Amino acid sequence: MAHEQHQQLLQTLSECIEECEHCYHACFQEEHVNMLADCIQLDRECADICAVTAKALSRESHFTKEYLELCAKICEECGKECEKHDQHDHCKRCAQACFKCADACRKAIA
Amino acid sequence: MAHEQHQQLLQTLSECIEECEHCYHACFQEEHVNMLADCIQLDRECADICAVTAKALSRESHFTKEYLELCAKICEECGKECEKHDQHDHCKRCAQACFKCADACRKAIA
Amino acid sequence: MAHEQHQQLLQTLSECIEECEHCYHACFQEEHVNMLADCIQLDRECADICAVTAKALSRESHFTKEYLELCAKICEECGKECEKHDQHDHCKRCAQACFKCADACRKAIA
Amino acid sequence: MAHEQHQQLLQTLSECIEECEHCYHACFQEEHVNMLADCIQLDRECADICAVTAKALSRESHFTKEYLELCAKICEECGKECEKHDQHDHCKRCAQACFKCADACRKAIA
Repeated sequence: MAHEQHQQLLQTLSECIEECEHCYHACFQEEHVNMLADCIQLDRECADICAVTAKALSRESHFTKEYLELCAKICEECGKECEKHDQHDHCKRCAQACFKCADACRKAIA
Repeated sequence: MAHEQHQQLLQTLSECIEECEHCYHACFQEEHVNMLADCIQLDRECADICAVTAKALSRESHFTKEYLELCAKICEECGKECEKHDQHDHCKRCAQACFKCADACRKAIA
Repeated sequence: MAHEQHQQLLQTLSECIEECEHCYHACFQEEHVNMLADCIQLDRECADICAVTAKALSRESHFTKEYLELCAKICEECGKECEKHDQHDHCKRCAQACFKCADACRKAIA
Repeated sequence: MAHEQHQQLLQTLSECIEECEHCYHACFQEEHVNMLADCIQLDRECADICAVTAKALSRESHFTKEYLELCAKICEECGKECEKHDQHDHCKRCAQACFKCADACRKAIA
């Protein structure tokens, strides 16, 4: 992976973590938390795997490819769930960050 | 914390993670790994607490202040150790990122 | 710390992680998730710090004491919140595991 | 997965974390750290994925299967590396814990 692509991927992972954790927190302030249960849980899953993947990538872990694959999968799932609730600005922004991150992970593997 | 300060802190934490993990990996390629044992271990401690702190900050965790305090402490220690080995470019850059991050964490608490 | 105390503390941390993550998951299945918002968020905070602390303890990290202090604090807060919802068996069990773990962390520091 | 199998798997993951972090720390005290560079790095990778997997398992994450697969893979690699250094008691014990954990993860998926 070229240096510039590496830097962009780290930036994209970092933004995805931020949007997921923000969405996670904001969901608990909404009126109907029950309807956001899947969203909250996926936000956490996604922020966690993005953080683990960013660290693995930066240390050139032997398992970077595996982390990127799993990260792409979880980002994709989280994006699909958040998209369903795009009347909430935090879900809308989170979905965009997740899809962008899923894409960047897949490109990095290819 | 103002929005802009928050964004800058997340950026600084992200750069510190990257430099620490990079330094961690690069130390293992050096001739005398024994002399870098403390550096390697602190690089890991530092990358890990920065990653945890960035997530806590983004979700407005009740424990953000505590994480920032511990993060500042570990960044400071890691910076001091890396500074000793600044003949290695990765250690030099890591020290700078760590001190900058320790500072940013302390300012965010104040 | 004596070897036996160390082993018991790791066991206690491990049980606390399990109860917190189980409670986290079970809360989302309850009828009124809104009322469990704080519980869910603390369950996550607690499971995460316990996992980080167990690893730090096992590698004799320089920051074990700091991690144990923060772990005790978060376990205590999580236990207090879960205790309020002890009509739910998962909250009741989680509160017990959290208080036990807070105690064990404090004893290990003393 | 039956309750008893679940409990045993969590126990096995917990023991693997402990042995990996202990081996990680002990390797830095050995005379020839250079020769243990791969071992140290895999110890960290393994402890980290085991901790993430134990939490995912306890909260019945949608991605438990994926985490177990990656965990089995990393445990296997770490076990193979540690096995090469079984003149060190910490490496020998770590290899055993890793192979046992890889096995338990694979059985849980099957």
